Amino acid sequence: MGLKEKLDAALRRQALLGAAVEGLVWDQEVMMPKAGALHRAQVIGELSALHHQNLTQQVLPLVREALATPHILTPSEKAQLEILLQEAEPIEKIPTELVRRFSEEASQAQIVWAEARARSDFATFAPHLEKLVQLSREKAQYLGYEEEPYEALLRLYERSLRPRAVEALFAEIKDFLIQTIQACQEVPLAAQELPTLRMPAADQRQLVEEVLTHIGWRPETNRLDLSAHPFCSGLSPKDVRLTIRIDEEDLFMALGSGMHEMGHALYEMGLPEEPLGWPITTAASLSIHESQSRFWENHIGNSLAFWKFMYEKVLPAYKPAWLSDYTPFTLAQRANLVRPSLIRIQSDEVSYHLHILLRFELERALINGALSVQDLPAAWNEKVQVYLGLQPPSDAVGVLQDIHWSMGSFGYFPTYSLGSLYAAQFAAAIEREYPDYMVHVAEGHFETPLGWLRKNIHAYGHTLTSEALCAEATGEPLSARYFQAYIREKVTQLYEGAVALPA
Amino acid sequence: MGLKEKLDAALRRQALLGAAVEGLVWDQEVMMPKAGALHRAQVIGELSALHHQNLTQQVLPLVREALATPHILTPSEKAQLEILLQEAEPIEKIPTELVRRFSEEASQAQIVWAEARARSDFATFAPHLEKLVQLSREKAQYLGYEEEPYEALLRLYERSLRPRAVEALFAEIKDFLIQTIQACQEVPLAAQELPTLRMPAADQRQLVEEVLTHIGWRPETNRLDLSAHPFCSGLSPKDVRLTIRIDEEDLFMALGSGMHEMGHALYEMGLPEEPLGWPITTAASLSIHESQSRFWENHIGNSLAFWKFMYEKVLPAYKPAWLSDYTPFTLAQRANLVRPSLIRIQSDEVSYHLHILLRFELERALINGALSVQDLPAAWNEKVQVYLGLQPPSDAVGVLQDIHWSMGSFGYFPTYSLGSLYAAQFAAAIEREYPDYMVHVAEGHFETPLGWLRKNIHAYGHTLTSEALCAEATGEPLSARYFQAYIREKVTQLYEGAVALPA
Repeated sequence: MGLKEKLDAALRRQALLGAAVEGLVWDQEVMMPKAGALHRAQVIGELSALHHQNLTQQVLPLVREALATPHILTPSEKAQLEILLQEAEPIEKIPTELVRRFSEEASQAQIVWAEARARSDFATFAPHLEKLVQLSREKAQYLGYEEEPYEALLRLYERSLRPRAVEALFAEIKDFLIQTIQACQEVPLAAQELPTLRMPAADQRQLVEEVLTHIGWRPETNRLDLSAHPFCSGLSPKDVRLTIRIDEEDLFMALGSGMHEMGHALYEMGLPEEPLGWPITTAASLSIHESQSRFWENHIGNSLAFWKFMYEKVLPAYKPAWLSDYTPFTLAQRANLVRPSLIRIQSDEVSYHLHILLRFELERALINGALSVQDLPAAWNEKVQVYLGLQPPSDAVGVLQDIHWSMGSFGYFPTYSLGSLYAAQFAAAIEREYPDYMVHVAEGHFETPLGWLRKNIHAYGHTLTSEALCAEATGEPLSARYFQAYIREKVTQLYEGAVALPA
Repeated sequence: MGLKEKLDAALRRQALLGAAVEGLVWDQEVMMPKAGALHRAQVIGELSALHHQNLTQQVLPLVREALATPHILTPSEKAQLEILLQEAEPIEKIPTELVRRFSEEASQAQIVWAEARARSDFATFAPHLEKLVQLSREKAQYLGYEEEPYEALLRLYERSLRPRAVEALFAEIKDFLIQTIQACQEVPLAAQELPTLRMPAADQRQLVEEVLTHIGWRPETNRLDLSAHPFCSGLSPKDVRLTIRIDEEDLFMALGSGMHEMGHALYEMGLPEEPLGWPITTAASLSIHESQSRFWENHIGNSLAFWKFMYEKVLPAYKPAWLSDYTPFTLAQRANLVRPSLIRIQSDEVSYHLHILLRFELERALINGALSVQDLPAAWNEKVQVYLGLQPPSDAVGVLQDIHWSMGSFGYFPTYSLGSLYAAQFAAAIEREYPDYMVHVAEGHFETPLGWLRKNIHAYGHTLTSEALCAEATGEPLSARYFQAYIREKVTQLYEGAVALPA
């Protein structure tokens, strides 16, 4: 085998091992009998170790060799390998044994967390969280950093991001968010008093499938299942599975989670299939991935145009009793009510980012050693009070609400806010190119935004960094002003100009 | 790490990689969107290659080293490693690249086969089957054999079995089977004319789950799903999944497949969990596995006692219209009607083994080069005529009916008949020890036979060969006479002495 063939084989193996883990994690979350958890943790730990070993012992040496023999590479291949090297070099520094231990600890912690949350019992979860914080700090030491340990973890998700940059981005929007929330709460909306969107679970499932089918969901290539934590698994571009959460009292939950995960799914379905394992077949970053879910959940799914489509073309067949109480406008109002919630995933688009900000500050303090696990619940409650003006009645709806820390995913949360900023900037670019695309959305046609995303985001895979991709697609680097403008416009429209927005 | 720790780790990895494949194959058969098939074939091919590599490059060298340092092993460990070596040595001779190619070819062939069967189109499947026959012959060359290539493949499933021995076993029962079928067909049974056991699919699913729960099925450790080809996956003793097939016109299909797969499941659930990867945590052989499914399907599920239990305790709640037409006796009669079918998995316990015999003869001829794939359909139809007196109206219900050859599983079919012989010998041993255990079965209590199997079969894992396990459990080596005696007794009872059985 020549060098190129060896490299292809190693990258292919890397992708296939990753897909095996993806498939087994999906099964774990959606299908696995409960008692299989411990064994599954060992299986995934072993595969993660092999995945890591293949990266460090096969892929990276071959990538370096290939880059040193550039005549065997096309310019695109060369660029891809450079990005791959840049992304993967830190991972090389983590010993495989730590990867396996981390994976196993995290799998077990998730099980304990689920039970601890059900009983609102932080104390049971605390030793597992401590272990994960400690292993993460160990990981950060191997990875290396310039200013603080948290930096190393954050950069595993967004290679060029620093904690200071995240802090700066939040500083730009923090006051705007807090003041907007306050101003909105002072304006009573009639939609607030309308009945909740109650619907039987089976109908909700069917409705979500129907809506997603308009956008691109297909039974030959997709699955739609239920899980407590909605997520999307891209096993291959032709096998992409999403889950939703159903609350019989509130259709918004199923629909919102469905639109969100469909955004992730469309990205996975739109990635090039070949050559397997090369960066062009993988997503650019978590932030870009999240931009896709946010775009479909918020810019499309929470738009007035979308609720026109729902009201006229989808909802009538399900005959919900509340339909006659609403208009497309009041449905959109209600979908977008700015009203802080204790629960991140039930939050409106404005207060959502304060949830992320407080998690960012807390996990940064945990990893940097400025906050102990023991003091975490109190610190959580304090920040919820300051940012959202709320008091969690229990840890179940407070510090225990998210799965992320139980997975050892520190540094992940900021990508959610970045995703929203990217989404707003992409939406603005789409609107510049197709000023009336929302007219089509109101008719149930989603080809225009999907086409733009396919062409300007999905088709690139990871051939560019997030920043470069954004600049290429929108003509400028990431800026928070599109997000601010979007929120301003939406609040003005749906609160009918009654909200005194901050300058 | 000392030698013992290294060996433990290698065996553990072997088990975990095996479990990963098991999980992904389950998903492929039960959950995966159709378009994911090709990619999944690649994932499984890659994992199979790693599994093979770990066996040959890690496990076996360490096993040899450990056996050469016997003071680090307990007597049980030593015996286990000797068995492992004996079983695995042939596999060592197959190049990893052939393992991967075989796995990928087989995955693709399965997809083609499923479509070919649906359209009864052997020609589309033929080139894939040819490829698999050719790869299997290649495999046989690597494995080595004394008398014929087929021997090498057969011994992958049953290490000490030779084609001649299978031939001899069948010679012992072949005439008995053919004559018994003929004699039974001459006796008209009233039960034959009673209505079919029609029941809505949802009720059937619930009924099967209820019955299996009496035997040991639990939602914490098990799943029950639907698939065209019922099967059982033991991902770990605490995660064992079975599938059934439902025919709304015929409850026997769901119940029979449920009892059969539950037999496999109980074995998997009864295996020791630790030390992971050591032979004591794995099944003794395919034949012994099949003895467990046959025992529960036939000796329990087709017994008069079981149908008493069904009639009195289970069926009434489902209110089937036909219930009043039956008695426990006529239900058992109908469950055991000796009436040859074109379809193996719909066959009675007598004609079933003629199905196996004809497959054994055909696959042996295919692998040994005495029969071409092109001539296979005609050869199939001829043998069905000779052994069963039937003429397949299409290949869909003829040569294309089984999945096995499309998986490249040549040498597998004979283990089904061996399983029945073992099952009958085990059932006789249980009866000697607990002469009235069927009285408890009639009450819905299955602890006695399960307890015997747990203690005498499951707990041993693969610490003994099939033959030694049989001798240890029943006091003598495998003999066909228990199976013959069982069939005689059953036919005499259910045909009320009216059948003139062969001497």
